[in-house]
Parts: sequence; structure tokens; C-alpha cells
Amino acid sequence: MSWSDGFIAVDWGTTNRRAYRLDASGRCLAEFEDAKGVLAIEAGGFPAAAGEIRERLGDLPLLLAGMIGSTRGWVEAPYVPCPAGLDDLVSRLSWIEPKRTAIVPGLSSAVGGNWDVMRGEEIQLFGAIDSALIPATALVCHPGTHNKWIIVEAGKITDFQTVMTGEMFNLLKSAGILAEFLAGAVAAGEPFRDGVRRGLEQKALTADLFSVRARVLLGNLDREDAADYISGLLIGLDISVGLGLAGDSDLIIMGRPDLARLYEAAAGVAGRGCRTVDGADAFIAGALAIGRTVE
Amino acid sequence: MSWSDGFIAVDWGTTNRRAYRLDASGRCLAEFEDAKGVLAIEAGGFPAAAGEIRERLGDLPLLLAGMIGSTRGWVEAPYVPCPAGLDDLVSRLSWIEPKRTAIVPGLSSAVGGNWDVMRGEEIQLFGAIDSALIPATALVCHPGTHNKWIIVEAGKITDFQTVMTGEMFNLLKSAGILAEFLAGAVAAGEPFRDGVRRGLEQKALTADLFSVRARVLLGNLDREDAADYISGLLIGLDISVGLGLAGDSDLIIMGRPDLARLYEAAAGVAGRGCRTVDGADAFIAGALAIGRTVE
Repeated sequence: MSWSDGFIAVDWGTTNRRAYRLDASGRCLAEFEDAKGVLAIEAGGFPAAAGEIRERLGDLPLLLAGMIGSTRGWVEAPYVPCPAGLDDLVSRLSWIEPKRTAIVPGLSSAVGGNWDVMRGEEIQLFGAIDSALIPATALVCHPGTHNKWIIVEAGKITDFQTVMTGEMFNLLKSAGILAEFLAGAVAAGEPFRDGVRRGLEQKALTADLFSVRARVLLGNLDREDAADYISGLLIGLDISVGLGLAGDSDLIIMGRPDLARLYEAAAGVAGRGCRTVDGADAFIAGALAIGRTVE
Repeated sequence: MSWSDGFIAVDWGTTNRRAYRLDASGRCLAEFEDAKGVLAIEAGGFPAAAGEIRERLGDLPLLLAGMIGSTRGWVEAPYVPCPAGLDDLVSRLSWIEPKRTAIVPGLSSAVGGNWDVMRGEEIQLFGAIDSALIPATALVCHPGTHNKWIIVEAGKITDFQTVMTGEMFNLLKSAGILAEFLAGAVAAGEPFRDGVRRGLEQKALTADLFSVRARVLLGNLDREDAADYISGLLIGLDISVGLGLAGDSDLIIMGRPDLARLYEAAAGVAGRGCRTVDGADAFIAGALAIGRTVE
């Protein structure tokens, strides 16, 4: 069976996986998402977990991206160092079964003493470039548990930096003195924007976080506004890192729409316009771009 | 019964309490510590919990300090605003039973837009001054779950700032991508000092933390050194806040000896000498100083 007859692309992350059946023309014929991320699969269980995807979507070639290629995944697909383009991903696919099951490698960066790794965002990024969703030179922000700031120059990723904003918010929500404030949803109103302004100053986060609690106790901040402020503080700090990497490129925010909206608002506070791109669209475009290269 | 015949002082925190029976001359005749912090006591259970202390140490007056005076404690002892001295604590004791059971108030600060609160450290601080463990003008660092930087001028606390270094370390240890590195003890060797140097630069913590994982994955940092580096990073950031408050006063580190050693090492990396003072000694001195004022 040739890949030009269609294949299944899987964004296989740490806690979830999302699979798309794509036909030769690039249409998505079927898809599903479940909680069988790599951490949910026992050692030795990956062939069966992949087989289950084929049972649900068809007996087609599989292109797997994300944490499935990490040391905790099925087979380690070694990181490709930056600068890297789509061709580098294609030439470094890890083939589990020739022409039938491949894992997309992640990228590593060690520019200017900043060590960093990504897995999963690279396929979205190159897909977005290949399908002209974003320009070939840009600064791309990819919010999530681990937000990635990606510098794209002439279609290649030349450097990137991760900021663990989502993970930090989740940790603060799970336990500790701020947890009681963080149960609800976050809105990008004035308390959020206040937090962003403070975050952009890039002060010591561990000091600013305690101050939120003190302000609530002393009546200087409404308890209901604390979650928005803390989210703004973390995203503002994040933005200060990203804008420091490439201050004048076009800024693109690519990812989950709810997070993209918060980052867009924060970028606005920093005086920076941007465009947003849906991450799922970019993933499919990236899978198609890779799939076309397979005989 | 007069307090000059002796009394019991209790450092009653969120998760633990430590009680000392003190005689008229200031000697500690008996003490115990248990896990009955305020969060372990049900609503309405404080009279019984205090009675239990008297059963164990004697039917004496009780002086209670720490979170026992918070909204989650027995009776709220409102914060005393800075600047404040020992006299202000004495005049604002919250009496639960006249001459027999009192709660020491905490302090609040709102200097220069930095809102902050403390409960429990103030009695140690004034005890340390009163017993000449520290000079009447100093910068005092009080490490713990929530490290306090306290500016002391002419025997009064004029300002302070909290940095939630210990809580952040515990959160990172409890879950998330760095947890697997943080199980062991921390030593103040070269990886710790490297972390301190980075922390002192006061960069975005959420970026620096992810970078630790990337460096381990890419072979730039030994897995066994990651905990020391992360501790150094957090304490270095903490030190950068504290030294920014009062750059040239005598620096005193007061608290648990294991933590005090790490802060002493970090202060050394910042080129700053310091002295250390045991927090338990300071607490007893503070309780005695207050006890002497009660008829």
C-alpha cells in the first residue's frame, strides 16, 4: 500500500493522543481523540496500541509524532539539532516497520547556552509553513503545558525556547497557598492585564506569587480576580522571554484557541500585534507534507 | 497565677506546632513537637487542643504565635502594620482568656507597592534582637516554606518581603517534569552554586526550569546534579530579591540549620558574608520578652 492512497497521522502526546485518517487529497475522513497518551501505555504495549488505531480508522500506514518518539515512548526518535527544516524531519524519520509505521523526530537547540527540546510542535510548525498558514520567517508562540517560542527563518527553525507556563499554573492549582484561588476559568480582563504588565517586568516569580496572597488577605486584590492576575503574571513573564528572542518578526500564535486568546491579549499589553493559527489544522498540514515524500 | 512564675510558649504553624515550657529565669524545662498544626484541628477544636498542651506541659499561661492567629486558626489576631516593634506586638496581643491565653499578632507591610504578611517570624525576630542574637539594624533572611526578608532598623521591622522558595521546590517535587530529579537531598556543591549564579540574574523562572530538563536530556547536566541546580536556581532568585531590599546592612540568616546552610552558601556566591542564628532559640527569646511584660 502506498502512502499516496492515504494514511493515518497521530499526534501522540504524554497524556492524550489524537488520530486523523487522511486521504490522498488531504481531506480528513475520520478522527478520534482519547486519553491513551504514552504514559498510559505499559512497556511493550505500543504495537497493540497502534493496532487499535488501525482497527478504528483503517489498515493504513501510520505517521506518529510527539512524545511517542521520546525515551518514554515506543521507539526513541533522536532529536534533530537546529537549524532544521521539513527535509530534515523527513530524512530522519524513525521507521518501526518499513513504509508502514514511522515516528517523526523532535528537535533540539543549544543556541547561545539555551538548551531546549521539542516533540510534536515541529510537525505543526512545518505544516503551517508548508500550507502558507504562517510566513517562512516569523516568531511563533505555541502555548500549552510547555509553551514554545520558535524562531523561523526562511522556512527553517533556527532556535526555540520553552517556558513551562501551563505546567506552573497547574502545579499552583494543585496544591499550596494559591490553589484556593485557581479553581475557576481565566478571563483576559483588567486583572489579567495587570498581571501581564507585572510579568513583563521579569521580576522574581516566587516573590510575585506570594504577594498575590498577601494582597487578597489585605484587601488590595479581590479574591475572584486572583486567578486572572496569576495567569496574566505567568503569561506576561512568558511573553517577556519570547519577545526577547526575536523582537521584530511577525508574531504568530499557534495552538488551542482558548490559550491563544490569552496570549494574544498579553501580546497586546506588550504592544505587539499578532495572528493566531489553529494547531490541529497545522498538524494535519505537516503530516500531509511529510506523507507526500514517502514513496 | 502570674506569668513571672513561668508559662508555655507555642509556635503553632500550619502543619506543626512546637511547645516550650519556660520558667521565670528563661530556662526551657520541657518541650514537645507534633503534627497538630492549625489545618489538623477541626473548627471548634482549639480549646481542647490548647488543653492538651497544658496536660502535657503543666497548667500554665499560654502564649501562642504563628498561624494560630490567622483566619484559619483559633481567633484571628489582626495584622499589625509596619513599622512595628516588640511593644506593638505586646499592646496588640489577642487575649482569648484574660491573663491566661494570648495570641501574638502577625505583621503586614505595604511599602512601595509590595504587599506582604507574616505570622510567627515576628516573635523570633524581636526575640533575636532582644537577646542580642542579632543587631538592632540588619537584613534578616528567614528561610522556610515562605522565606521572609526582613528589614530591621533601630529594633523595629520597617519592611519585609516573602519569597515562596520552599513551597515552589515542594510543588516541583510533587508533580510535573522535574519531579523525578528532586527526590534526594540537596548539597551546596558546584551544581548548586551554578544554579545560584543563574538565579541571581533574575531571569524568567518558568523558562530556566524547563531548560534544566532539556540539559539533562541532551547530556549537558548530570541527572544527579539537577536537584542541587534547581535548589540553587530558586535560592539564587530569592537572594536577588532580598539583597535588592537592603544591600548594605549586616545579613543574618535565621531558621532551620539545614536551610540556613544553603542560604549562607548562596549569599557567598553573591559575594555577601552573613551570620546564622537558630530560629528555635530566637523564638524562646521572643516569648520570654513578651512574657516579661505581662503582669
